[in-house]
Amino acid sequence: MKIVRTIEELREVRKQLASPLGFVPTMGYLHEGHLSLVRQARSSCVSVVVSIYVNPTQFGPLEDLDAYPRDIPRDISLLENEGVDLVWLPDDKIMYPERYQTWVIVEEVSRPLEGAMRPGHFRGVTTIVAKLFNCVQPTFAYFGQKDAQQAVVIRQMTQDLNFPVEIVVCPIIREPDGLAMSSRNNYLSEKERKRAKVLYRSLIAAQRAFDTGEKDAEKLRIIMADIVRQESVAQLHYVSCAAPMTLEEINGEVNHALLSMAVYFGKTRLIDNVIIGRVDDVSSWSSEKS
Amino acid sequence: MKIVRTIEELREVRKQLASPLGFVPTMGYLHEGHLSLVRQARSSCVSVVVSIYVNPTQFGPLEDLDAYPRDIPRDISLLENEGVDLVWLPDDKIMYPERYQTWVIVEEVSRPLEGAMRPGHFRGVTTIVAKLFNCVQPTFAYFGQKDAQQAVVIRQMTQDLNFPVEIVVCPIIREPDGLAMSSRNNYLSEKERKRAKVLYRSLIAAQRAFDTGEKDAEKLRIIMADIVRQESVAQLHYVSCAAPMTLEEINGEVNHALLSMAVYFGKTRLIDNVIIGRVDDVSSWSSEKS
Repeated sequence: MKIVRTIEELREVRKQLASPLGFVPTMGYLHEGHLSLVRQARSSCVSVVVSIYVNPTQFGPLEDLDAYPRDIPRDISLLENEGVDLVWLPDDKIMYPERYQTWVIVEEVSRPLEGAMRPGHFRGVTTIVAKLFNCVQPTFAYFGQKDAQQAVVIRQMTQDLNFPVEIVVCPIIREPDGLAMSSRNNYLSEKERKRAKVLYRSLIAAQRAFDTGEKDAEKLRIIMADIVRQESVAQLHYVSCAAPMTLEEINGEVNHALLSMAVYFGKTRLIDNVIIGRVDDVSSWSSEKS
Repeated sequence: MKIVRTIEELREVRKQLASPLGFVPTMGYLHEGHLSLVRQARSSCVSVVVSIYVNPTQFGPLEDLDAYPRDIPRDISLLENEGVDLVWLPDDKIMYPERYQTWVIVEEVSRPLEGAMRPGHFRGVTTIVAKLFNCVQPTFAYFGQKDAQQAVVIRQMTQDLNFPVEIVVCPIIREPDGLAMSSRNNYLSEKERKRAKVLYRSLIAAQRAFDTGEKDAEKLRIIMADIVRQESVAQLHYVSCAAPMTLEEINGEVNHALLSMAVYFGKTRLIDNVIIGRVDDVSSWSSEKS
């Protein structure tokens, strides 16, 4: 496994890697969610590249950039075990040199949900992903369904800007109690960690209601919100029942939806989601789109 | 010479073209300026691709999008003569399909000069160029120094977003009387056409003043403005003496500058520029930058 830092080194090693090339961009502190993306890439591609970079431009001024957990030696050892070909570890000076001034902005699908709560977040995400794509030049790029809106935004960007990259969105990996894996779970106290399963529990309750006949979007939102509000340490940030592709909030009858939410436990903000209505939602995206 | 319209056709033919590949993006109605870019590409590259697309997003609502001159059969015949391998003729539905919503924005260098006079213009330029780069995947892309700020903005975008493309800026091609070649010259009446040489005449006067000792930026701007104002049909839009890379207006002593201007003749807006101070300005750009 090669490890590089500069873009010049990356391009040099990249040239030697055979296609199709799978790329997993990460912010490090890897967990089973990340490793599931790496395994998917490993099983579908001849070469696998992973980047580890905590991208400052996707953090708000009051967010957890400095506190974001980091453990590069452990990450490298995990990636070595997965048979990754190349790990890229750029730094801020490489990614945002002096006089940096270019941004990639996706409009509509960046606005609701996380975009509404975290101004500028998706501008940072789409900009760094565009840069990573241009550096790594992958055939496939892998993202987790855990960050559902991020996946939608990146697909929209990739399609709109005609990047020659296929976006693959992989299922959420969960702890035994249902909590979606996230590097931010490490912020939780023992007590908070126990209560954090309420996100998935409320999503599943709404999904079950939908499956047994409740098709009203507002009722589904209320089911989720009520369950979260009953959990004393949990502070609901938002619940949503939205169109999976446009992320527009649904009013009235639901056929197919992304149920999602953000919940605070103390200062820690967790997100989770499920898709209801169609089993083939991921594969249907491109056909639905065209 | 192959001619394609859709992105799928383009990618298919692109695969067969050997590297290095030179790309000349145009809005058509080709003149000697464009052809000089094509010839430069032809002499440096194994394959040459030209796109012809009048990009609506770089025109303001009151600008000349509908009136912009078009003559595809003539353009194709000219490109065939130059030994171009592939001509790409996309349309608006291909480039901006329904629900299109992604923009590439370059901040500082897009703001002054043309950017100040044409709000949104460079957002349209950088977005379409990013899209064209991702579709064509060239080794080199050729732009004319005539649109000096456009060249600076595109270089900045290419560098900031790490596009694996080298930007080549080629000298302005002029009519015998000094008028810079432009598709918009076709809008000029016979009388206006005769007076339009005042742009170059005033630039050359300022350049000569600089070469013979006038190093004050404001004095150079005044020399240019005075000459343009003496031409009765010409309406000065702006004159500038700016740093060639940052495009910041210079106050005080000039060592190296982009002298530029925009002038109206009736409804027709013409731009022109010269670089003063260093002969090696183009090659010095990257070293100056780092």
